[in-house]
Amino acid sequence: MENDFKYLSNIKSPDDIKKLDDKELIELSAEIRKKLIQTISKNGGHLASNLGVVELTLAIHKVFDSPKDKIVWDVGHQAYTHKLITGRFEDFDTIRQKDGISGFCHPNESQHDVFYSGHSGTSVSSAFGIAQAKKINNDDSYTVAVIGDGSFTGGLVYEALNNAGRSKTNLIVILNDNEMSISPNVGSLAKHLARIRSKKRYVSMKALLEHLLCKIPFFGFKIANGLFKIKTTVKNFLYESTIFEKLGFRYMGPVDGHDIDQLSEALSAAKEIKAPVVLHVNTIKGKGYDFAEKDPSSFHGISNFDITTGEFVTTDTTFCNEFGKLMCTMADRDNRISVITAAMSLGTGLTEFSEKHSDRFFDVGIAEEHAVTFASGLSKGGLLPVFAVYSTFLQRCYDEIIHDGALQDQKMVLAIDRAGFVGDDGETHNGLYDVAFLQSIPKVTVYSPTTYDEMKAAFGNAFYKDSDVVAVRYPRGAEPELPADFVPSYGTFDLYGHAWAETVIVTYGRLFSEAAKAANILLKKNIKVKILKLNRIKPIDGAAVEAVIGSKNIFFYEEGVRSGGIAEKFAALLLQNGYKGTYDIIAVDDCFVKQAKVPELMKMYKFDCQSIVEKISEIKLR
Amino acid sequence: MENDFKYLSNIKSPDDIKKLDDKELIELSAEIRKKLIQTISKNGGHLASNLGVVELTLAIHKVFDSPKDKIVWDVGHQAYTHKLITGRFEDFDTIRQKDGISGFCHPNESQHDVFYSGHSGTSVSSAFGIAQAKKINNDDSYTVAVIGDGSFTGGLVYEALNNAGRSKTNLIVILNDNEMSISPNVGSLAKHLARIRSKKRYVSMKALLEHLLCKIPFFGFKIANGLFKIKTTVKNFLYESTIFEKLGFRYMGPVDGHDIDQLSEALSAAKEIKAPVVLHVNTIKGKGYDFAEKDPSSFHGISNFDITTGEFVTTDTTFCNEFGKLMCTMADRDNRISVITAAMSLGTGLTEFSEKHSDRFFDVGIAEEHAVTFASGLSKGGLLPVFAVYSTFLQRCYDEIIHDGALQDQKMVLAIDRAGFVGDDGETHNGLYDVAFLQSIPKVTVYSPTTYDEMKAAFGNAFYKDSDVVAVRYPRGAEPELPADFVPSYGTFDLYGHAWAETVIVTYGRLFSEAAKAANILLKKNIKVKILKLNRIKPIDGAAVEAVIGSKNIFFYEEGVRSGGIAEKFAALLLQNGYKGTYDIIAVDDCFVKQAKVPELMKMYKFDCQSIVEKISEIKLR
Repeated sequence: MENDFKYLSNIKSPDDIKKLDDKELIELSAEIRKKLIQTISKNGGHLASNLGVVELTLAIHKVFDSPKDKIVWDVGHQAYTHKLITGRFEDFDTIRQKDGISGFCHPNESQHDVFYSGHSGTSVSSAFGIAQAKKINNDDSYTVAVIGDGSFTGGLVYEALNNAGRSKTNLIVILNDNEMSISPNVGSLAKHLARIRSKKRYVSMKALLEHLLCKIPFFGFKIANGLFKIKTTVKNFLYESTIFEKLGFRYMGPVDGHDIDQLSEALSAAKEIKAPVVLHVNTIKGKGYDFAEKDPSSFHGISNFDITTGEFVTTDTTFCNEFGKLMCTMADRDNRISVITAAMSLGTGLTEFSEKHSDRFFDVGIAEEHAVTFASGLSKGGLLPVFAVYSTFLQRCYDEIIHDGALQDQKMVLAIDRAGFVGDDGETHNGLYDVAFLQSIPKVTVYSPTTYDEMKAAFGNAFYKDSDVVAVRYPRGAEPELPADFVPSYGTFDLYGHAWAETVIVTYGRLFSEAAKAANILLKKNIKVKILKLNRIKPIDGAAVEAVIGSKNIFFYEEGVRSGGIAEKFAALLLQNGYKGTYDIIAVDDCFVKQAKVPELMKMYKFDCQSIVEKISEIKLR
Repeated sequence: MENDFKYLSNIKSPDDIKKLDDKELIELSAEIRKKLIQTISKNGGHLASNLGVVELTLAIHKVFDSPKDKIVWDVGHQAYTHKLITGRFEDFDTIRQKDGISGFCHPNESQHDVFYSGHSGTSVSSAFGIAQAKKINNDDSYTVAVIGDGSFTGGLVYEALNNAGRSKTNLIVILNDNEMSISPNVGSLAKHLARIRSKKRYVSMKALLEHLLCKIPFFGFKIANGLFKIKTTVKNFLYESTIFEKLGFRYMGPVDGHDIDQLSEALSAAKEIKAPVVLHVNTIKGKGYDFAEKDPSSFHGISNFDITTGEFVTTDTTFCNEFGKLMCTMADRDNRISVITAAMSLGTGLTEFSEKHSDRFFDVGIAEEHAVTFASGLSKGGLLPVFAVYSTFLQRCYDEIIHDGALQDQKMVLAIDRAGFVGDDGETHNGLYDVAFLQSIPKVTVYSPTTYDEMKAAFGNAFYKDSDVVAVRYPRGAEPELPADFVPSYGTFDLYGHAWAETVIVTYGRLFSEAAKAANILLKKNIKVKILKLNRIKPIDGAAVEAVIGSKNIFFYEEGVRSGGIAEKFAALLLQNGYKGTYDIIAVDDCFVKQAKVPELMKMYKFDCQSIVEKISEIKLR
């Protein structure tokens, strides 16, 4: 086993990288790829993106001096190699497991991880902040942002480039161009990049020449200045030919991202420039593993798979797939229905829709804000837009949902996938906030179905019954098991269990399954429980409050943040209606939820059947 | 009087514009400017931006056919001329008044207003949505977005351009370049625009030539195609010299924005292109009113002023000014304190700070998302960043506050101006959501001071006592009047009134003033009231709940949205602690708040002293 990782097992910190010669680095690269494939095939995670940046990561740590120089990985889903060579080789098998290392950057794991991350497009802004602070503190070390071309479809990067461009900081932005943003990249910038991707390296030569000329005292500075002036006439060819230069950055590249020698040379040159630089690096997503190279989208964020065949463990039906099928069916019948994704067509189950209704399918790039405002325009134009998005990424368009959604007196549907615990991806990806932030927005309707059929009914209401912004939220994975005697009403709420029970559980979404199981166990212990299952969580039906107002004990189970959530709202409704019993809230209370399997999280946060039984059994002791 | 507006008074719809010749349009422009200055000098509003687009607006309505063609005004603070010539001349004196016309676009006023608006940078996204819907519906009419260069510092525009660039829709983006974004424009794009601003019109000629060549059947198409190929070698000069072309748009301009003839010609040419076009128009902000031309920042969004002298009605001290002074003092003592604004240095009271501590002052453009993530970097670099922002614009960075703020285990301070009712600017500008959305974020602390001194204490805590993200929110205008016998504790809450009163008002921020007045009036009616004034609203001090748990009647007054707000949270805390009395919430409930003066709004939403007295007097009837 040790022989498999002859070099890698001896890399304890980036300093050890600096000791290896080119040949050894190539062997190390091969070991890293082996380790990545082995581990991710078992634990799941991000494969293709990590395989693409093995050499780039080695070159960065060879040329820069972390942690003095700060390396900021955008998203962090490509930082596995970085983890392996910054002291986390031994723990690497625990990646994305409960109590293991994170699948993203995590400052509590290593001084080489600068920020906790997981969302796209933040690296240039945050790296520029560090670079600016360094400048104020007269610290001439470097700040490096490593960011994929996919993230460049997001406006945050543009805001950062526009702000940083002429800042005279030691900021180096490495554009890792693999022509992908999870899915193949979209938009005009991708085409612009594709064009410059194939060009030769003269631009980098140019920037370096200019720098070297400047270095010659007095005389050189004048030549360089002269060069700047002469250059004006041809600068559109050489010097301002990329969008990055328009935004005030020096541009270098494109460089072969799998050639450590060339990368090191370019990075060293970038260091010499002492002004914000974009270094454009061409990489191949999935590099070194055939199946991933051929189908990098499928090997982006994945579950475990068979290394030899490249086959995934097949998943059963999921809310995600059911949603995709439903949209196809509904769009067949209603040609106004159009679907928007923010670079997540696979992740939100829309592959079939994108093929079947390509004229009404819009992948807008990693641009959630634009997605909502664009939907507003589609709606104004007479269509019925649906924005399919993960709960955690919907956080990006809070203002747009208010300003371009709810305020506009027109229909817009939000299909919120991955609502609730998400699991292995940890703090940055759990969908625990959507309920709270959506309920603060006027005129928004929110459904939180438990089953596929309820989800379908909710979308029916969303399209044809409710007005304004309507959100339907559903969890990652499959519908939960329900008791055989539960008969759904497809109304705004359901009641289950003993009609006259004085103890009531109020909940919504998949927690109903745990609550129902608990109720049946409690019954055997002679504790009668009624469950109020809310299907529409905003607005809450007054009749739902009425149905439990006479109870003695109410327990509200909420798979989301407590603060600002539905449990607190329900408390206010109860109090206003004269409720005199006890009230308990079991929710996620003012903390970030770390990675673990969803069932593990259910236990940790006391949402599982057993915990519910224990909690409610306490009543007897009161 | 009628003579003053000989032309304007006869313009009932855009059709009437089409009937006027060039000379008449020039006279109409003069009348419009007179009307704008007269009205805004009385009602306040946006002056400089509106004076800048008089001719542009006339040219647009001359060339396009609204409402068939859709004209989308970004923000809408420059749409006054549009309002004057689309049937709202008679009502123009009511602008920004209760029950009057809005200072922004408002579809319920006119079929010529496409969207409700007020926030920056949404127009390209929403216009592209319409254009896309038109394309799907085989409707070949036009969609026009009119957007200032200031809005181009925001990422939303970039996301939209990237998405729309190669879309084959009839989308025309008019870049109204006045070199400003409220304050003088910042960032690299501004410099890029400044360079092309001074160029001649050959680019527009080029685009038109190409179009005309294409029009010659068969042969012409071939020439044009040939031209495209020949062009490749020089296209960086002529055809891809702007950032807009990198993003897939045709670029035309720059055009003199005060020459209706030139504008009309350019707009007609843009219509012919039948592909997304950016038309770059140079305008002068404040055009035609000397004081505004010389100082367009001060004449952006203003209160009433003296037309002859250009002098504003002097305002007293405000939270905004006190904040600015405080930051200067604190930054004198602590060289880590650094302040960020998103193009609002005047609006957030930071003019003095920007001069005194220019090295630690950052105007990032209209880029709130970047502001927060950049602050995260500054904090990582050892500084103490404060982001000063209006409540309504903070909505834009909900995800960044979670992901780049609270999650990072480091300090960041949010100074939230214009929290609560804002008044004349209406639905889009009220700061009614920040409490609700901030309370959903883990580890965030929120203060809502009532007085300047409490605000100062809160910032002291924010910098030196609390950890993670700390927000201090304060309203527009001055501190409210407080009763002489109120002695502030500067703790997490205060109690005022009868210690043993069974009736309690819970509130925070400036509503305490109304509540205290009401309590004193009620006392004369022999109704004893205690007031619990929360100073720190997240987390709520358990002792604050304890202090009122034995009460009989609790009324929670909240100048913000009810849903997800503090009143609901307080209800949950009361219930959990066994409260048995009644509970009433008086808050803004699931609606958008229209324009009116703040005192008028206080009455309408029952927050004023008199309404409180009436509400609480009802107890006796229970």
